[in-house]
Amino acid sequence: MIRWKVVIEYDGTDFKGWQIQKGERTVQGTLEESMKKLLQRELRITGSGRTDAGVHAEEQVAHIDITGDEANLLKRSLNAVLPSDISMVSISEMDGAFHARFSAIARCYRYRVILEKHPLLGRYAFIYGNRRIDLSAMKTAAELSLGKSSWKGMAKEGSGNRTWNVNVHETILEEDLFGWTFLIRADRFLRGMVRLWAGTLLEIGAGKLPPETISKILETDDRSLTGPSLPACGLCLVRVYYENV
Amino acid sequence: MIRWKVVIEYDGTDFKGWQIQKGERTVQGTLEESMKKLLQRELRITGSGRTDAGVHAEEQVAHIDITGDEANLLKRSLNAVLPSDISMVSISEMDGAFHARFSAIARCYRYRVILEKHPLLGRYAFIYGNRRIDLSAMKTAAELSLGKSSWKGMAKEGSGNRTWNVNVHETILEEDLFGWTFLIRADRFLRGMVRLWAGTLLEIGAGKLPPETISKILETDDRSLTGPSLPACGLCLVRVYYENV
Repeated sequence: MIRWKVVIEYDGTDFKGWQIQKGERTVQGTLEESMKKLLQRELRITGSGRTDAGVHAEEQVAHIDITGDEANLLKRSLNAVLPSDISMVSISEMDGAFHARFSAIARCYRYRVILEKHPLLGRYAFIYGNRRIDLSAMKTAAELSLGKSSWKGMAKEGSGNRTWNVNVHETILEEDLFGWTFLIRADRFLRGMVRLWAGTLLEIGAGKLPPETISKILETDDRSLTGPSLPACGLCLVRVYYENV
Repeated sequence: MIRWKVVIEYDGTDFKGWQIQKGERTVQGTLEESMKKLLQRELRITGSGRTDAGVHAEEQVAHIDITGDEANLLKRSLNAVLPSDISMVSISEMDGAFHARFSAIARCYRYRVILEKHPLLGRYAFIYGNRRIDLSAMKTAAELSLGKSSWKGMAKEGSGNRTWNVNVHETILEEDLFGWTFLIRADRFLRGMVRLWAGTLLEIGAGKLPPETISKILETDDRSLTGPSLPACGLCLVRVYYENV
């Protein structure tokens, strides 16, 4: 058996998230089922991390242990077997020590906010009707998010984490004709973290909270200070980073 | 009554095209139904032209005759009543002589081709697996499409047109990381025209037909010379042009 890195893209709208669940349509479940159809045996695919129901991915990463012939078969035929809302972008041979989750050194997520209903964007964005948004206040807040801190105050409870520490490497906020895009790259992400962060940034942009709220949440772990969690549809896992890859 | 220009955006995937049809979900039907709900009376909306089942629109245009109060009501509430795959972009007061179809001086359509299955793009593009495409041959062919000619050879039969003449003002072909985009602006469009044109361009790009095929079709009206008609999902009505608007 050889270890393979598999890059996967999906439209999360009609999936109940990444992780396999009995009786639910999930990304992992759909992948394993389609691979089984082709390879005529059960196999387990290990993801870099879970995405929640409705969250999209441009480049989710997973690993599998299969033979070279099996990998060739997947390369040739998997996308034809997979439904239209999921595809394999690439499959590449790795060292046996590679692990989709534990070898990952960083991930990048994007949250997209649009000002108005746009049927051609709406599947991948959250509509926020408030036009009076102070971008520079949001940028200040995003800068206060950088570095290593406890993100317990901006994550879902009961995530079962041993530690809440997150090291945020980079944030990018962009404004365009339709709204705003928030990018955040960190060593790890806690459950619900980006959606709470984006919701807090919007409240800051709207002047309902001062930019320093971010520092306060990271210092105190106080969940009552955050803005609302924004809907899953606006969130997309953009990339998973590995050493030398 | 005042005449209003209404700009509409829709994701055509789940519509049986623009035109109202009994028992079918159409764009016109959905718009009229939602307007009736709000205005409590029947009204007729007149489009700039029909789009086929599955074809999208960034800026379709229609006109309606309603009072200023009714227009305000639509402006405030129509998008909340319309389903998520259709929205009103704007509504503006016009001269009584304005007609969405007859006043239009040009329309622009876009056809999007991608090389591989991409779940996040696939709803709005056609997948064409051939990577050996000669962009310059397609560009030559696109230039041969310019000007006034009979497009009978690159349109669906039985369109019931009095004339097949089309004046193509501009074509733009772009290549990007994912594939190609074909833009075509003309005074009018015949049924199935862009999908046949795009299919012919791809065959030319693939070297199966010489670029001069376009001129030959336009000179002879010979339908047997065209490439295949491409699927509706890749097509989008980008804009409708009016004098001084």
